[in-house]
Amino acid sequence: MNTVDQRGFQVGSDARVLEANTPSSAYIDIPASQALRLDCDQLLGPYRIAYETYGELNAAKSNAILVTHALTGDQYAASKNPVTGKPGWWETLIGPGKPIDTDRFFVVCPNVLGGCMGSTGPASINPKTGKPWGLDFPVITIGDMVDAQVPLIDHLGIDQLFCVIGGSMGGMQVLEWAARHKERVFTAAPIATAAWHTSQNIAFHEVGRQAVMADPDWCQGRYFEAGREPRNGLAVARMAAHITYLSEEALQRKFGRNLQDLSAKSFSFNADFQVESYLRHQGSTFVDRFDANSYLYITRAIDYFDLAADHGDVLANAFKGTKTRFCVVSFTSDWLYPTRESREIVQALNAVAANVSFVEVESDKGHDAFLLDEPEFFATVTGFLNAAAAKRGLRPVQGSR
Amino acid sequence: MNTVDQRGFQVGSDARVLEANTPSSAYIDIPASQALRLDCDQLLGPYRIAYETYGELNAAKSNAILVTHALTGDQYAASKNPVTGKPGWWETLIGPGKPIDTDRFFVVCPNVLGGCMGSTGPASINPKTGKPWGLDFPVITIGDMVDAQVPLIDHLGIDQLFCVIGGSMGGMQVLEWAARHKERVFTAAPIATAAWHTSQNIAFHEVGRQAVMADPDWCQGRYFEAGREPRNGLAVARMAAHITYLSEEALQRKFGRNLQDLSAKSFSFNADFQVESYLRHQGSTFVDRFDANSYLYITRAIDYFDLAADHGDVLANAFKGTKTRFCVVSFTSDWLYPTRESREIVQALNAVAANVSFVEVESDKGHDAFLLDEPEFFATVTGFLNAAAAKRGLRPVQGSR
Repeated sequence: MNTVDQRGFQVGSDARVLEANTPSSAYIDIPASQALRLDCDQLLGPYRIAYETYGELNAAKSNAILVTHALTGDQYAASKNPVTGKPGWWETLIGPGKPIDTDRFFVVCPNVLGGCMGSTGPASINPKTGKPWGLDFPVITIGDMVDAQVPLIDHLGIDQLFCVIGGSMGGMQVLEWAARHKERVFTAAPIATAAWHTSQNIAFHEVGRQAVMADPDWCQGRYFEAGREPRNGLAVARMAAHITYLSEEALQRKFGRNLQDLSAKSFSFNADFQVESYLRHQGSTFVDRFDANSYLYITRAIDYFDLAADHGDVLANAFKGTKTRFCVVSFTSDWLYPTRESREIVQALNAVAANVSFVEVESDKGHDAFLLDEPEFFATVTGFLNAAAAKRGLRPVQGSR
Repeated sequence: MNTVDQRGFQVGSDARVLEANTPSSAYIDIPASQALRLDCDQLLGPYRIAYETYGELNAAKSNAILVTHALTGDQYAASKNPVTGKPGWWETLIGPGKPIDTDRFFVVCPNVLGGCMGSTGPASINPKTGKPWGLDFPVITIGDMVDAQVPLIDHLGIDQLFCVIGGSMGGMQVLEWAARHKERVFTAAPIATAAWHTSQNIAFHEVGRQAVMADPDWCQGRYFEAGREPRNGLAVARMAAHITYLSEEALQRKFGRNLQDLSAKSFSFNADFQVESYLRHQGSTFVDRFDANSYLYITRAIDYFDLAADHGDVLANAFKGTKTRFCVVSFTSDWLYPTRESREIVQALNAVAANVSFVEVESDKGHDAFLLDEPEFFATVTGFLNAAAAKRGLRPVQGSR
């Protein structure tokens, strides 16, 4: 169903398009007077950061956990997503009695700058033109995403975050928080991530971007005004990316060579194999909830991420003088951000004598393991947060687990 | 440049389109009276197999080596490709004094059924309609490709091939030759291959097919008549596949995070990184030489390949009673067909007490290693062929190496 927005031009086809400019969640508008100097040297402002919170901030404002999301995540970490109607993406980890215990901690989860769920991004209206930004939106970095979150933390009156935690691109934001805003981060948990994006990972992202841009309905990024949407291209991009989120073992265990609703091969181009039908489903549900231009911008930000390069090619320099306590977690079957890349982070932290614990969780679920039911991961996060809370003098919850 | 074929409808844009129906190489036309019963149970005939030969067949016709090609290969294994003008794809291995020594062996390399370089495939004219087959071409299997080559071997008067050798999908054809036509294969060398396609590999192929079929210029497979070509979709498919042909180490070594002709990030969607520009080049040169529908058919054939399933789920059954001597080769950094999948083949051969040698070649070049300069691989092939030649009583070449 197409909708016409208040400015009178036709926009896309669903709730998602409305969320980009009128988020269901809380948000703050940062005025032009506090415009953000981006890494590309452009000034961005005014801009908006949409966010969700869970639990309560204590009087000392010392129990706040900032949760940073991955490429296609959003602020709905532990609450129903208004577009998909599905539970939050990290409800495995966040909630009463869970590792990130909302009976004890105050959780803030912002949608990233460049996202499409209410924070300013290419699907938002550019105040200068009254039209969606599209490709006029400046190319941003992970560091820009982080800097754009600072006014939100200020707004909430939080001087020092008890913890910044996130997986995948969320983990990159964690690293940037720890590097750029050392004093404001008591603990940091970069999960299933890396300090820089490899050539192979850039290659996968480039395939996705080319798939989007090859779709004639992309319209050079001005699809909203054209009343079109590059659904096919974005679906292909998602399918390719999705393979990298799973391990070969997980795919094999889940699907093997099982046929889909068929007793024999169809000798056609139908989705004979379950894995084909699964991937097609992943592609088509994704385009219902995500903006194609946001996908371009966010993958680009990840590709640009190289924390060592930003610090004289020595990763340890990024953390020099840090007092933050770190917990680094990787998963054995994650081939997108394999354990050796977490180990590089740990080595850099060791080189500056940082307080760091490192756990490689045994899992056959691939990169996506950080979103799934992984008891060893949960135990790691629980233990890390409990110890840090004790260190910070946070009172245990009554009858806490 | 578009061309109009003899039937008067506009076809694609280059030499490739002409090659599909008027190959530069030798070919044989198999008449309708010898129609092939395909695995899908359809009859195909007449059909054509285009092929190249190198070296000379000896009087006893005992020195013939059949070279089977990979997904996007063709008959030009050791001679200039008429479309690209480039050297043959296996000139590293085949030629005078090379491991497959054309001073000593007679080499035959056919274009596979379903291909687009002269053997019958979706780009060929369907004699029943006078138009290109397109999606009316039956869905074929690796076994069908092999069975379609039998009349060529008959035509050449060869009773028993001295060797069948091929890498990747070529290796699958080797396995089918050894399984379906045991008596006709003296030695068999499946290189960098597997006896079945994993879920992850099916997934990558499905992404490629979806990319092609999402391109509006694909026209449901009837792009020739429409005077169009799904270039963007096929390029994206190739880019995604190409990543799987290289190892992460090779990509990192070759490109790292090096920027392309730039001293700094462009903060745009240009190909900033060398790996992006490399991939785009791989995509665009591929569409100049390959037919999109052939890509669909051949990837499908590979996905369907499961030699165990065809033999009561016991791979060894495929080789029961074999007298063929096998040489199985894998490469350490090949993650498309990792060593463990070659080991499965070796174990099945061991289970039927076949004569088999197995070499895992140390290489950081990924799957593509089988096409590259790999001295340990060359030494393995040379040694295997020399020993087998002695066994078969082939005279060494004068002053042979």
